Amino acid sequence: MASTSAAEVMNFLNEVAGRYPQAISLAAGRPTDVLFERLGTADLAARIDRYLDASGLSMATLLQYGRTAGAIHALMAQQLRIDEGVPAVPERVVVTAGCQEAMSLCLSALCLTSQDVALVCNPTYIGATGAAAALGIAVHGLTADGDGLPAAIDEAVAGLRREGRRAATLYLIPDFDNPTGRVLDRAQRLAILEACERHRIVVLEDNPYGMFRYDGDAVEPMAALDRAGSVIYLSTYSKTLCPAVRVGSAVVPETLFGDRQAATALFDDLVQRKSYLTVNTGQIAQAIVGGHLLLHDGSLRGWIEPARSVYRNNRDALLDRLDMRFGSDPRISWNRPEGGFFLTVDLPFAFDAAAVDECVNEEGVIVMPMAFFALDASQDRRIRLAFSAVGPERIAAGVDALARYLARRMAPQAHARETLAEPA
Amino acid sequence: MASTSAAEVMNFLNEVAGRYPQAISLAAGRPTDVLFERLGTADLAARIDRYLDASGLSMATLLQYGRTAGAIHALMAQQLRIDEGVPAVPERVVVTAGCQEAMSLCLSALCLTSQDVALVCNPTYIGATGAAAALGIAVHGLTADGDGLPAAIDEAVAGLRREGRRAATLYLIPDFDNPTGRVLDRAQRLAILEACERHRIVVLEDNPYGMFRYDGDAVEPMAALDRAGSVIYLSTYSKTLCPAVRVGSAVVPETLFGDRQAATALFDDLVQRKSYLTVNTGQIAQAIVGGHLLLHDGSLRGWIEPARSVYRNNRDALLDRLDMRFGSDPRISWNRPEGGFFLTVDLPFAFDAAAVDECVNEEGVIVMPMAFFALDASQDRRIRLAFSAVGPERIAAGVDALARYLARRMAPQAHARETLAEPA
Repeated sequence: MASTSAAEVMNFLNEVAGRYPQAISLAAGRPTDVLFERLGTADLAARIDRYLDASGLSMATLLQYGRTAGAIHALMAQQLRIDEGVPAVPERVVVTAGCQEAMSLCLSALCLTSQDVALVCNPTYIGATGAAAALGIAVHGLTADGDGLPAAIDEAVAGLRREGRRAATLYLIPDFDNPTGRVLDRAQRLAILEACERHRIVVLEDNPYGMFRYDGDAVEPMAALDRAGSVIYLSTYSKTLCPAVRVGSAVVPETLFGDRQAATALFDDLVQRKSYLTVNTGQIAQAIVGGHLLLHDGSLRGWIEPARSVYRNNRDALLDRLDMRFGSDPRISWNRPEGGFFLTVDLPFAFDAAAVDECVNEEGVIVMPMAFFALDASQDRRIRLAFSAVGPERIAAGVDALARYLARRMAPQAHARETLAEPA
Repeated sequence: MASTSAAEVMNFLNEVAGRYPQAISLAAGRPTDVLFERLGTADLAARIDRYLDASGLSMATLLQYGRTAGAIHALMAQQLRIDEGVPAVPERVVVTAGCQEAMSLCLSALCLTSQDVALVCNPTYIGATGAAAALGIAVHGLTADGDGLPAAIDEAVAGLRREGRRAATLYLIPDFDNPTGRVLDRAQRLAILEACERHRIVVLEDNPYGMFRYDGDAVEPMAALDRAGSVIYLSTYSKTLCPAVRVGSAVVPETLFGDRQAATALFDDLVQRKSYLTVNTGQIAQAIVGGHLLLHDGSLRGWIEPARSVYRNNRDALLDRLDMRFGSDPRISWNRPEGGFFLTVDLPFAFDAAAVDECVNEEGVIVMPMAFFALDASQDRRIRLAFSAVGPERIAAGVDALARYLARRMAPQAHARETLAEPA
């Protein structure tokens, strides 16, 4: 399966989840409720009050229209510096209606003509390819990841040039990628930055999962390693506070490839585009985020700890059960991500939409074909498992269910359903 | 002056307002703080609690990701039926991050190819032409308003057809238009609907001011008069609750030109585009709106009464002072809107950006050149005056200041500044 549209995927999965409400979903990458079950309405009100106190704004001013680029840009820049090591400057932060708006704004500002193409990993986050499609922007999937990315970028640039086109931007998730879970190491990031500087490609570094590392050492964000002025950093509070605030940002570098005026012009263009998409980001939501940061010394590290602990346990439960069920089966393998919400399982056969349907119908577990995130057939024999929103016991039961389904599919007489054996 | 970009206008006005913070602004069309000064943080919390009680949702579910088309669509449909007479069906309501997002979604869904053009009145709301520009969609300004609109639509369609292009949609504000303040009467609305049905043009009916009528009888919204299935109704809570919630909607008709499946497909397309722009509308903000509606029997009529009374007094003060200052001057005329936030003043000379600068610098009042909203030079000799956010005394002082400026500009030796006399 290749080039399934993002909308088809979302419709399909919603429809499947709706038909099987009791199924175990290893498909959905939602944050755990543990993250925000500490937020009652009084807590939300307290955050708004705290923000009003600290900012000196009146409630009436808060409830009016406000600055297009946002009200809490300084608090957000500070949090990104403290928590993520991103050298964010308040004057370069566009506060957006979630990271998705930031992505749309950047794609449309960077890809101005039909010759401008967005490079993406393959597979990649469906919201990025979907935003590009909705904006009429062509995407080009890179043929390698990790160590192979710089050469794949060179190759893509050369190929596009032959067609009279240009790689204007590269979208990627360096930390705990959605969908694959992979992390780019420091050397890989530097090599990608070097390639992008050489080709004047603006990197859109999306980092929703960077603060959710469970072991190993953090790698600096590309925005921190960037010396050329080639990285726009995209952030979100959906995974660190709650999705319902719909607050994120795009952080423009101080210079764009060394040109300060060009960076200012890009910032101004993003702000203008924002004014025509959503006017400004809801100031009640901004006040909740701002007040929360003020109440927590500007950092979310401590606040997310309960969620991080949930995810670590979930990941361990998933890896343990995969080891138990498939550890001795050379036909099945998977990565062991040090953080994030997802991992990738490699299978010996193509797992498509029909397989999702069969698997949930026969065994009651929903998994995500990696093909749904792919631009070609290269990901057909892979699935993505999410471990963020389901507890250890359901994860174990989900893997058991998946194992039963896979065993049947891999049995010699895979098409003769009635003769299939259960796994040991 | 013609074809000033919306961004230039906004930058210019912000810059002017920043340089003259003490000036009286008859330029800004913000809602009065009287509208929402009744909303403290405890009131916001009470609204969220009320919504959770009524919907049966848990706080954790509210704070998660939610339905792309929105959570409070049924409450919003009910309010539009009660307050505006719009036959809104919950299943056809896309809840958006303010009306601006609804406009962007509809323009991009309706204008799919470079041949598809959006028709607009000339002058028109700058957010509409700005959104079109940001999306790369061509706009075509109609050459007449009011009674002349149907013929202007026919003419535009014919002209575009000769160029191999197509009028895909018509954006307009039938009630208390921004910028002009004009209202289309029932016969005019029916004639426009007839023309749009004939040409298969989808009407985007934007109605932010419809509930702010101060005298005369309401005219049914075009969405209520629509028999063909040609009107998408755009709504906002920025003027009836507060701008900071950033909640609005697009209401798709039950059929699109009689075709139910086509209307469903359009709705689905809007939802998909929404998912790539902002994922969903912030559910905290939706809960505040929903709770507010639940606390007020589903209607905002009573709630906006204090604001409506403020606007009526402001409008009366503005009209009185215009009568006093210019009533005997045949060179200056203006309309007398029965509602809304704005009126139009016709002048005997072109009022451009330099005039704005001079007028605020010399007399301390900021007004809006109508040219800023225009697609050509036809509006150069007009200004827009807003009466929503400034009280009667400042309105009177602002008109006096404007009168002094205009008197100088209209004096025989208008260019010999030192000889100019003050008006009586």
